[in-house]
Amino acid sequence: MHKVLHELKVDLGDRSYPITIGQGLLGVIDLTPWVAGQQVMIVTNNTVGPLYLEKARASFPGKTVDVVVLPDGEKYKDWQTLNLIFDALLENRHTRKTTLVALGGGVVGDMAGFAAASYQRGVPFIQIPTTLLSQVDSSVGGKTGINHPLGKNMVGAFHQPQAVLIDTDSLQTLPAREVSAGLAEVIKYGLIRDDAFLLWLEAEMDKLVGLQPEALAEAIFRSCQCKADVVALDEREGGIRAILNLGHTFGHAIETFAGYGSWLHGEAVGTGMMMAADLSVREGFISSADFRRTAALIKRAGLPAFAPASMKEADFLNLMAVDKKNVDGQLRLVLLRALGDAFVTDEAKPEHLRQTLGAFLPEAG
Amino acid sequence: MHKVLHELKVDLGDRSYPITIGQGLLGVIDLTPWVAGQQVMIVTNNTVGPLYLEKARASFPGKTVDVVVLPDGEKYKDWQTLNLIFDALLENRHTRKTTLVALGGGVVGDMAGFAAASYQRGVPFIQIPTTLLSQVDSSVGGKTGINHPLGKNMVGAFHQPQAVLIDTDSLQTLPAREVSAGLAEVIKYGLIRDDAFLLWLEAEMDKLVGLQPEALAEAIFRSCQCKADVVALDEREGGIRAILNLGHTFGHAIETFAGYGSWLHGEAVGTGMMMAADLSVREGFISSADFRRTAALIKRAGLPAFAPASMKEADFLNLMAVDKKNVDGQLRLVLLRALGDAFVTDEAKPEHLRQTLGAFLPEAG
Repeated sequence: MHKVLHELKVDLGDRSYPITIGQGLLGVIDLTPWVAGQQVMIVTNNTVGPLYLEKARASFPGKTVDVVVLPDGEKYKDWQTLNLIFDALLENRHTRKTTLVALGGGVVGDMAGFAAASYQRGVPFIQIPTTLLSQVDSSVGGKTGINHPLGKNMVGAFHQPQAVLIDTDSLQTLPAREVSAGLAEVIKYGLIRDDAFLLWLEAEMDKLVGLQPEALAEAIFRSCQCKADVVALDEREGGIRAILNLGHTFGHAIETFAGYGSWLHGEAVGTGMMMAADLSVREGFISSADFRRTAALIKRAGLPAFAPASMKEADFLNLMAVDKKNVDGQLRLVLLRALGDAFVTDEAKPEHLRQTLGAFLPEAG
Repeated sequence: MHKVLHELKVDLGDRSYPITIGQGLLGVIDLTPWVAGQQVMIVTNNTVGPLYLEKARASFPGKTVDVVVLPDGEKYKDWQTLNLIFDALLENRHTRKTTLVALGGGVVGDMAGFAAASYQRGVPFIQIPTTLLSQVDSSVGGKTGINHPLGKNMVGAFHQPQAVLIDTDSLQTLPAREVSAGLAEVIKYGLIRDDAFLLWLEAEMDKLVGLQPEALAEAIFRSCQCKADVVALDEREGGIRAILNLGHTFGHAIETFAGYGSWLHGEAVGTGMMMAADLSVREGFISSADFRRTAALIKRAGLPAFAPASMKEADFLNLMAVDKKNVDGQLRLVLLRALGDAFVTDEAKPEHLRQTLGAFLPEAG
């Protein structure tokens, strides 16, 4: 039995594409309408591959399907692993009419997407995100890339997929920690732009943590729709799109300090959003009660409330300075004017910033 | 004394940019109007850097100028060397408003351009090509990228510069072999689209080989104009732009066989164009006299007339099959319908192709 629960179109002119969300879709939905040539290269990892590769193959009837299996983990989001994709493409003589397919979480999506952006200067790709985080985050926006030892996502490209297929069945096997990491981004959409969605999340959080399929599909749909609205307004991230980075400047500092992969991206964003909400109180935008609502929802999603053990104020300040959200040296942050209304500022007072950092350092716990 | 001899605009809508050609321009022309932020990263190599780096710095008054010096040579057009650029950008905390500057030949341009295309998912760059080949080839088209052990330019991006500055003074120190390699591409423009330019080249070839500045500037201008006309018709290389690959499918096979860097790109293209002209005779498009005119001009430019020692027919056939000009397995070649009129075909007869390969294998000499 399969059931399409939601469909939406990401509207980007001649690079528009559909997102199909439902249960039992993988291997049932025919994806060949989005494959221009005869060749398909599925990029997956050694965790997701054994679970879903054969189903994914069945979505490309009549095509020549090759596969490259990457090691699983954020720490492999690097040149060496990216090159495994190029090796596989060239060894199997894939031409510039090949189509890449990302089957896995955000790391697989970012790497397969960047490989597609740069193989022979650009070939099409299809996303089949299998984690909640990648379903609500990587499905929309066209961001692809890899990490550098000195910073996350420092090398990459904007490259839009031909189509995205989201099968909620793939979440039933997802570790609880990764569900929580995905819920961080879901909560983010409520916080930055949609107070009605925030109320819905407060009401339905237990169902989401309990992996109820209809609730999950609804949360994914509303998250993708929110992100699509923002991205359509600002595809290349010159303006409003920056609000999607709520919690990310703090979060990237946490991830970099902890070492890629030891904190999940969504976990770092969860803590980072609490920090952004805390700073928004100190800057006089939201109330302490708003902060407590925000922190309570993030904690109910199972996310950490403090920075990693042994992280210091100076670590935050150093690592935030190389974050790519900075323009010509100014520290830019996303704050909340109200719950459901984020904005970008480079005017946060340094003493408020330091108070916020102090409140979330591990010894503060 | 400096003298602007030619200016042209590459017309690509909101990605249009100017090319300025003349003598004594480097360090005199102010390039800061094309720098949006405060930071500049000059990418050069250890041959060009000692000759022109200080002049190049002087073209960016008032900006913070950092430099990364790469090892010189096609064999360094790889991931490892590309990463030196990212290392320098991150170590010097360059933001997404930095501007990269390519100071050098085609390898530096391709790598600095790809670094600009992918650093933080894309930053602006300026080209200062210092070899004849890069002045007439890389200045127009937006192609950037690196090599893979299994094929040239297999990983890259389309990324247009903000501006191109061509100073013919930089050709006075260029080795004769590299002048010849550049003349191969100059001749190409005459062959594919401009029989009047071909006549001009037959008249002026001795001046070009003798490095007369006005003749060089004229040849560069007409070459860039020809390429700009073709690229403006077909920016992403779906159609007519493929004629720019005259001689390149044969040439890439030669370069790959010889090992990157042992034959210059232009040398391989020179031999490749003779092979394309030869095949065009066998296919019944041009006369033997046309072939002899073509071959004579290419030889006068100082280019090799045979494939590398020990290269076999099978080497060509294997290496041409992975060339990126192939679509879904069909061997596509650029041939001449007449001198000054190239076209793309996948219908060359296999026996004619083998005769052409045989005529240019080293033992044929």
